[in-house]
Amino acid sequence: MAKDFPKRSENYSEWYNELVVRADLAEQSAVRGCMVIKPYGYAIWEKMHDQLDRMFKQTGHQNAYFPLFIPKSFLSREAEHVEGFAKECAVVTHHRLMNDPNGSGVVVDPAAKLEEELIVRPTSETIIWSTYKNWIKSYRDLPILCNQWANVVRWEMRTRMFLRTAEFLWQEGHTAHATREEAEAETRKMLEVYAEFAEKYMAMPVLKGHKSPNERFAGALDTLCIEAMMQDGKALQAGTSHFLGQNFAKAFEVQFLNKQNTLEYVWATSWGVSTRLMGALIMTHSDDNGLVLPPHLAPIHVAIVPICKSDEQQRQLDEHIAPIVKALEAKGLVVKYDNRPEYKPGWKFNEYEFKGVPVRLAIGPRDLENGTCEVCRRDTLEKITMPIEGIADHVADLMEAIQSNLYKKAADFLCHWDGTVETEERIKEETKATIRCIPFDAPEEEGKCIYSGKPSHRRVVFARSY
Amino acid sequence: MAKDFPKRSENYSEWYNELVVRADLAEQSAVRGCMVIKPYGYAIWEKMHDQLDRMFKQTGHQNAYFPLFIPKSFLSREAEHVEGFAKECAVVTHHRLMNDPNGSGVVVDPAAKLEEELIVRPTSETIIWSTYKNWIKSYRDLPILCNQWANVVRWEMRTRMFLRTAEFLWQEGHTAHATREEAEAETRKMLEVYAEFAEKYMAMPVLKGHKSPNERFAGALDTLCIEAMMQDGKALQAGTSHFLGQNFAKAFEVQFLNKQNTLEYVWATSWGVSTRLMGALIMTHSDDNGLVLPPHLAPIHVAIVPICKSDEQQRQLDEHIAPIVKALEAKGLVVKYDNRPEYKPGWKFNEYEFKGVPVRLAIGPRDLENGTCEVCRRDTLEKITMPIEGIADHVADLMEAIQSNLYKKAADFLCHWDGTVETEERIKEETKATIRCIPFDAPEEEGKCIYSGKPSHRRVVFARSY
Repeated sequence: MAKDFPKRSENYSEWYNELVVRADLAEQSAVRGCMVIKPYGYAIWEKMHDQLDRMFKQTGHQNAYFPLFIPKSFLSREAEHVEGFAKECAVVTHHRLMNDPNGSGVVVDPAAKLEEELIVRPTSETIIWSTYKNWIKSYRDLPILCNQWANVVRWEMRTRMFLRTAEFLWQEGHTAHATREEAEAETRKMLEVYAEFAEKYMAMPVLKGHKSPNERFAGALDTLCIEAMMQDGKALQAGTSHFLGQNFAKAFEVQFLNKQNTLEYVWATSWGVSTRLMGALIMTHSDDNGLVLPPHLAPIHVAIVPICKSDEQQRQLDEHIAPIVKALEAKGLVVKYDNRPEYKPGWKFNEYEFKGVPVRLAIGPRDLENGTCEVCRRDTLEKITMPIEGIADHVADLMEAIQSNLYKKAADFLCHWDGTVETEERIKEETKATIRCIPFDAPEEEGKCIYSGKPSHRRVVFARSY
Repeated sequence: MAKDFPKRSENYSEWYNELVVRADLAEQSAVRGCMVIKPYGYAIWEKMHDQLDRMFKQTGHQNAYFPLFIPKSFLSREAEHVEGFAKECAVVTHHRLMNDPNGSGVVVDPAAKLEEELIVRPTSETIIWSTYKNWIKSYRDLPILCNQWANVVRWEMRTRMFLRTAEFLWQEGHTAHATREEAEAETRKMLEVYAEFAEKYMAMPVLKGHKSPNERFAGALDTLCIEAMMQDGKALQAGTSHFLGQNFAKAFEVQFLNKQNTLEYVWATSWGVSTRLMGALIMTHSDDNGLVLPPHLAPIHVAIVPICKSDEQQRQLDEHIAPIVKALEAKGLVVKYDNRPEYKPGWKFNEYEFKGVPVRLAIGPRDLENGTCEVCRRDTLEKITMPIEGIADHVADLMEAIQSNLYKKAADFLCHWDGTVETEERIKEETKATIRCIPFDAPEEEGKCIYSGKPSHRRVVFARSY
């Protein structure tokens, strides 16, 4: 058990912050609101990136790259967009430094003021639609199905690592279509991709639905979202997919000749997930012993710790364990054999437990004699001693068992919350919950708005948001 | 042959610029000096990224992510670094926009001035070493072998797509070591990785060597480089690896306790390649018919064009060609079967030729009868008619043949240039060549500096640079 590590039940927020740092996922940087994503945290993000990227490509999308900077005037082109957005952002005003005439250091060169300020992209609809204008002439040029992996900046006042940072990493899909129906279908399709990713890879159950008009993306006609429930009863928006109608096409004059040779405005979608998914992943599965990772996203699947008292034993164990490592790797598992002499086995046990490695094997001199090893599951902390024979098959099976157990645990938790109107009201009073999501599959049913008492036809999901 | 496409021999620079746009690789954006990397160009960069990333991981490196912004004061910490660098850069001075009180659009909110300006990273040594200070206490924490894939900004006045743009994509490795020897070995090792990548994947021969002290990276004790020779006789710096000594450790006070329990400053390296490699790739192989791509980096290996005059023929060809596509894909090849009715076969031939697809197959009704197809190689433009039987094996072999042919062609070209002192002098007079590289394997030999006439002990590589 990690020392001085806060319990979820005592201080959930403190628990999260400490976990991120102590599991070596990320840390605050010298720049306000910007984090450093450390190698272990980044390795998890890379796994998310790679899997999402595969799913985007399987659904016909291609990656491209658009500029980091957006001319200030672009933001005013789509009226609702600028209204709902883009106020808190990083503004580039100059393009040169010079040596301080008073001696030390550098100062901004006042002669190098930009004619028009540049905004570090908070999202890229405007710069992308100004580009699409040149790409689209005819129906033959449609659809355009582009995605971009990029960093974006929103000058948040209160930041929390992964959940809300000034700079974050994300992907943003931006598609252009000839018809409203096609764009709406794309909006829905990509939400399904996000939901599938969340459930199959993150082992995180999500609710799919519409945002209420108030909470829509600035410039969208409809915003779909997936919401995940965290262990403290709050909902976390984990991904959004926007149907943008013809708003951006009109703002940037993007028209195409249809098959009937008539000019029409192009229909648009955009959709994104970010490093915020890291926060969701952490909060969905982790416990008072640290991080818990689903095997499908774990950078290390199995840690093997040898236990020995002499160099001679160490040498024997190295030799004994080498083929076990090979057998596990042959199953496609990433194995860390940690025989560093400068750290004790107990320290290593804590380390891999805290970092959420799904399975740990420990092998000592007695195991050597008996042909056994100790197998410990991170999700249940269950330890059993097993024969080495067939261990690779067993551990590979364990990975699938852990993956589905984590999903089940998270889904059980979700059920407690998906209650009656009365429950929702109680939750709201206690937790300041807001409308998070109007689920797709909510049946029409008559009821009263819990706040105003006016008639209502559908249930919605209330939760306090991050 | 593409219409109105400039010839290399007539206007090399125009040829390059046109090629980048017409092969759908990139285009100028609405933001000065920033390009849009289009899907086809980005797909090539992704292949470079993926292969380099594998090579970095195989040599023990991990990825991480550091902030986009650097506090202005950090740049002054390492005196030589700021002297040689960082003057032309994007400076963030404000963090909020507001509605223009005079009516339309948005303006910078003067109340939201930052206390200290932030610089959009031109390179990350300073922010990374300020972070490493917290990571390194003891020799146990070393080495640190981190890499970052990121965008950087240098406010270049004259830009050319891929070769020199204000924003570009790159990777930057930043490593920390306990000894000088280890850091020097790392510097050299990563140069070898770059050279191997250039030669094996880009099919681009490179010269490895040291930069002259004048051309070293700002803050480095030694800069190693790979230089590639372009078809117009100019050299292109394709990658650099810097031995930074203890300069950044001293600037950011990064010390460690060695095994003898004494405090020492840490030794550093940094190394990087960028989207400039795209420019190098284009200029090494392409010709007056457009782009030529080595198969190891081509997003599409084989384009198949059916030739038919009726819907019935089209249907027959679709059926006939489906198993050929499957057989090629089973060889690990990426195949584009282009049966779009709205474009003619001749248009498609030009398209895939211009985009550098290594092999094109054409299959018409007569081929259907004869069990044949036409195979065209992009590198030689050679066309032969072959039996369909065994075509997948043949095309897979062709890929390797094209890859090595491209390397050989580029290497032959290089030899013409690697001449005597007299040749070098003539080149310099005619082309304004500068010292590009002092090759590792240059033998010691007595000579005179061609400019000053003073004694010299080693030959160097002169070329005009991009």
